[in-house]
Amino acid sequence: MAITNKIQNFHMEVHEAFLAKAEALTPTLRETLVRPVRTVDLVLAGPDCAAREAERGFTASRPMGRDGQVCLDFGDHQVGYVSFRLTPVGSPPDAPAYLRLKFGEIPYEIAASASDYQGEVSRAWIQEEFLHIDVLPAEVRLPRRYAFRYLEVTVLDTSPKYQVVISEVLCRSVTSADRSAVPPLKSADPELVQLDRVSLKTMEDCMQSVFEDGPKRDRRLWIADLRLQALTNYVTFRNNELVRRCLYLFAALTQNEGRVGACLFLEPKPQVDDTALFDYSLFFVSCLYDYYKATGDLDTLRELFPTADRQIELSLRELDERGIVTDRDTWWCFLDWSDGLNKQAGAQAILIYALRQAEALARRLGDEARAEGYEAAVRRLTQAALTHLWDEEQGFFVSGSDRQVSWASQVWFVLADVFDRAENVRLLHRLMERNPGFPMVTPYMYHYFVEALMENGLTGQAEARMKGYWGEMVRDGADTFYELYDPEDRYASPYGSRIVNSFCHAWSSTPSYFIRKYLAP
Amino acid sequence: MAITNKIQNFHMEVHEAFLAKAEALTPTLRETLVRPVRTVDLVLAGPDCAAREAERGFTASRPMGRDGQVCLDFGDHQVGYVSFRLTPVGSPPDAPAYLRLKFGEIPYEIAASASDYQGEVSRAWIQEEFLHIDVLPAEVRLPRRYAFRYLEVTVLDTSPKYQVVISEVLCRSVTSADRSAVPPLKSADPELVQLDRVSLKTMEDCMQSVFEDGPKRDRRLWIADLRLQALTNYVTFRNNELVRRCLYLFAALTQNEGRVGACLFLEPKPQVDDTALFDYSLFFVSCLYDYYKATGDLDTLRELFPTADRQIELSLRELDERGIVTDRDTWWCFLDWSDGLNKQAGAQAILIYALRQAEALARRLGDEARAEGYEAAVRRLTQAALTHLWDEEQGFFVSGSDRQVSWASQVWFVLADVFDRAENVRLLHRLMERNPGFPMVTPYMYHYFVEALMENGLTGQAEARMKGYWGEMVRDGADTFYELYDPEDRYASPYGSRIVNSFCHAWSSTPSYFIRKYLAP
Repeated sequence: MAITNKIQNFHMEVHEAFLAKAEALTPTLRETLVRPVRTVDLVLAGPDCAAREAERGFTASRPMGRDGQVCLDFGDHQVGYVSFRLTPVGSPPDAPAYLRLKFGEIPYEIAASASDYQGEVSRAWIQEEFLHIDVLPAEVRLPRRYAFRYLEVTVLDTSPKYQVVISEVLCRSVTSADRSAVPPLKSADPELVQLDRVSLKTMEDCMQSVFEDGPKRDRRLWIADLRLQALTNYVTFRNNELVRRCLYLFAALTQNEGRVGACLFLEPKPQVDDTALFDYSLFFVSCLYDYYKATGDLDTLRELFPTADRQIELSLRELDERGIVTDRDTWWCFLDWSDGLNKQAGAQAILIYALRQAEALARRLGDEARAEGYEAAVRRLTQAALTHLWDEEQGFFVSGSDRQVSWASQVWFVLADVFDRAENVRLLHRLMERNPGFPMVTPYMYHYFVEALMENGLTGQAEARMKGYWGEMVRDGADTFYELYDPEDRYASPYGSRIVNSFCHAWSSTPSYFIRKYLAP
Repeated sequence: MAITNKIQNFHMEVHEAFLAKAEALTPTLRETLVRPVRTVDLVLAGPDCAAREAERGFTASRPMGRDGQVCLDFGDHQVGYVSFRLTPVGSPPDAPAYLRLKFGEIPYEIAASASDYQGEVSRAWIQEEFLHIDVLPAEVRLPRRYAFRYLEVTVLDTSPKYQVVISEVLCRSVTSADRSAVPPLKSADPELVQLDRVSLKTMEDCMQSVFEDGPKRDRRLWIADLRLQALTNYVTFRNNELVRRCLYLFAALTQNEGRVGACLFLEPKPQVDDTALFDYSLFFVSCLYDYYKATGDLDTLRELFPTADRQIELSLRELDERGIVTDRDTWWCFLDWSDGLNKQAGAQAILIYALRQAEALARRLGDEARAEGYEAAVRRLTQAALTHLWDEEQGFFVSGSDRQVSWASQVWFVLADVFDRAENVRLLHRLMERNPGFPMVTPYMYHYFVEALMENGLTGQAEARMKGYWGEMVRDGADTFYELYDPEDRYASPYGSRIVNSFCHAWSSTPSYFIRKYLAP
C-alpha cells in the first residue's frame, strides 16, 4: 500500500517493555549467494515487455564503452545486495566509468523510462542508480537492498581509450524464512504445486526483519498484510516468533489513545506511521486471534489482549445512533483499491468480524463480562446492519448514502457471519451470478472472497477462483505474486504507472494458505 | 588535456627505487572546512549563465518536496568532499528521498543539461550525482571528490507525506599547498594583485598528492602542466618536495625504451599512461633543469639526469636526413589545442630548447663530452631550422609540408634562442603586428608567448598581454584560471561542450610566476 491518510494531532505512544520484547525477537537473516543465469534482450510490446534469452549462463560481459548494455536475468525474484567486478580493457582508464543500473522485478520496469514517471507515489521507489567509479578495476558493492529478477547495466560512458567488462555479478539474497521448516505439500495437482511454489517464494522474499508488505515498495510492516502473511506462515514457514515480534511492535508503538496504526517503519528506529485506517486497527484483533489459535501462546495473548480490546473500544465510538459505522469522505478505511468503493458496509462487517474474535479471546482469558459485552455489540451491530444496510429486494448489502452494492461489502458480511451458512451460500452465489459492480482489484480482497467461499463449504468454487485468479498471474509469468492484479486490465496501476507497482507482495501469497488449510490439509 | 594518443606495443618500465622515493614524498593533505555563503538563482543567457544572489548566508533550506531545488554558492572554488544533513519534515518518511546533485566550477555547468552532452571526452567527468537516501534523518557524506563553487541540490522526490530540509552543508576542502609559505606580493597594482590571487587559488586547488592538471578533469599528473606549476611553485608555495616527487614518479614509470610518458595516473597505483607526445617527453629535461635551478639539489639532478638524457636521445632519432624533426599525421606533439596547427617547427624548436637545458645540466655534472654532444646537436638543428624552416621572405618560421605559419612556431623558436635578442624582438613584433593566423587558444601556449616577451626584454608588452588575457578571464568572473580561454570565442571547447572544460587548470596559473619573477621580483 502506498497512499496514506494522516490522523489529526498525531503522536506516538511507546510501550517500552513491549518494544524491548519485539527487539529481542529480531531475526537473523539467512543469506544465499545468487548469480545471474543468463542474459536477455527486452522486447517492449505496447504496455508489456518480454525478456527473450540472449545467452545462457553469464560469466562476464563483452567489453563495453559508451552506451554498452547488458541485461542480466537472475532466474527468479531476489531480495538482496548486489556486487560486481568492473575491469577496464584497453588503455589505463583516463576517466571514471559511469554506469546506470536498473533493477526490475518484471522486464517492464527495465524497459520503461523512469524519467517519464509522473505518478503520485514517490519516484524514489524506482530502482535505478547512476554510479561513477573513479578507480578501476573495482569491486562495486551497492549499499542498498533491491527487489528484482532483472538487472540492466548500461555503460553511460568510459572514455574513447578504454572499455569495461562486468563480471562476478552476485546477489547476496536475504530472508528470515527457513525453507526447511515448510511441510511438504500434500498435493500433486500441478496447478496447486505451482501456486504453492510462487506463494512460498513471495512469502520468503517478504520475510525480512519483519513481515514486509513488499520488498520493493513499501518495505514495511502493514497490519493487513501481516494478517495474511501470518495466516500463510502458520501452514508454511511456521516462523511464529516473527509474527510475535510484529504483534509486539504494533502494540508497543501506537498512535493517539492507543490506536494501532496502519503500518510501522523500522528505520532509523521502529515507529508507527500517522496513517489510521478503521479496518486496519481492527486487524490487530484478528492477528492476535489467529496467532493464539495457531500457537496456543497464552502469555502473549494475555499481554496483548488489552491492545486488542482498545481497538474495539475505539471503533465502537464510530457508530451512529442507528448502530452503523459512520461513513466519511476521507480515505478512512481500506477494504480494497477499487476506485469509488464505499467503505461503510465493509467497515460494519469487519467490526462485527473482529468483535466475534475478541469475544472468543476474552472467553479464553476467562473475562466473561467483557465477552458478553462483545457479544451484545455483535447482536446490536448485526441487527443494525440487517435493518439499515441489507436491501432485501436486491438481496445485497448496500453501503453509503448512495446505497452502493460492491463485492467487498458482500464478502465481508459473509465473513462476519451475520447469516447462517445457507444464506451465506445464497448470497455468494448471487454475488457471482449478478456481478453487481465494484469488483475486487487486489489479491488482498480476492483473498477474503476465496476465504468466504472456503469457510462456507464452496470449496470447488473457491479452488476454481483461486486457480483462475492467481493462476492467471503465473501464466502471465509471475515469479512472485503481485500487489495488484486485474486479469481484465493487466497493466492497471492506482499509482499512475505500473513501474512503481510491487510485483512481490505478501498480501498476495495466500494460495499456500488455502491449499494447505483447505485443499490438501 | 584529455584527448590522447596511444603508442604502439605499450608497456611500462618501472624503476622501483625511484618509485619508493616518490612514494616516500607523498604529501599530507591540509583540510579546511568550508560552508556555503549564499544561495543563488541561475540565469541562463544563451551560452552563458549568471549566478544572481538569492539570499545571503545559508543555514538550512526551506522544506523541499518533489522538484524542490536550491543552489548553494561556496564563495570561491573548492576541491573537496561534501557532506550535509537531510532532515524530514511532515509525516514519518514513507519513501526514500531521491536527490540530484550538480557541482559546477562555473554556473553554466549547473544550468546546462548533462544529458544533452554528446562530446568525445567522457561524460563521466560531468559532476552530477543521483542519490537515494533510504533512512532519514541522514548525514550524507559523498565519497567522491569534487571541484566546484556551486552546488545545486534538486529533490527529485520525497513523497506526498514528507519533505526534506538540507542543512549543515560542508565541504572539506583539500590541498597539499601551504598558503603561509607564499612570500608577500611586492606589488600594489590592483590588477596584478588580482591576477596573483587567482593564480594562487588555481595552484592551491591543483596541488594535491601530485600537481594535478585540473581537479575536475583529468585529475592527474601531466608533465607539461607540471612544468608550469613547478615554475610558479618556486616563487609562491615553494613546495619543492612535491616537484621532486613528481620528477621521481615520471622517472620511475616510463614507457617502452625509457620514454617519459605524457602523463601519470595515481590510482589504483601509480602508472604511466600510454600517451606519448614529442614535446612532453622533452619537458622532463626542462622540469629537471628548472628544479635544479630553483633548488640546487645536485643529488636529485645526478640521479635523474640519465632519464633526461634518454629523452634527448629518443628525440634525436626522429630527425630526417636534413636534421629536421619528422612531421607526422597523428597527434604526436601537443604545442596547443588550435585546430589544424602543424607541430613540426614547434617540435624542432622545443628539441633545441631542451638540448640547451640538457647541455647546462651535463656541464653542471662535469660531463663535458656529453655537453659538447648536445652543443653540436643544437648547432646542427639550428642550422637545419634556419635552412629549411625559416622563410626569409615572410620573416616567419614555417611548419609542415604546407609551410604553415603559426604563433606557436614563432614563439618556440624565440624561446629556443636560434636568433640573438635583437632578431628575437623583431620576430615577436612582426608576429604581433601581422598576426599570421593559428593564434594561441590555451593559457598554456599563451604562457610561452608571454615568457618569450619577458625573456627578450619586452616586459611592458608582456605585462599588457598578461593583463589582457588572464585579466579578461578575471573580468569574466573566473575564481580560478581556465584550461581554455579565447577572449574572441569565450564559449569554445575542443570537447564538444564547455561543460567538460576544466575551469581550474594549473597550466593557466603562471601570472604569479610572471609577476613574482619579472614584474615585482
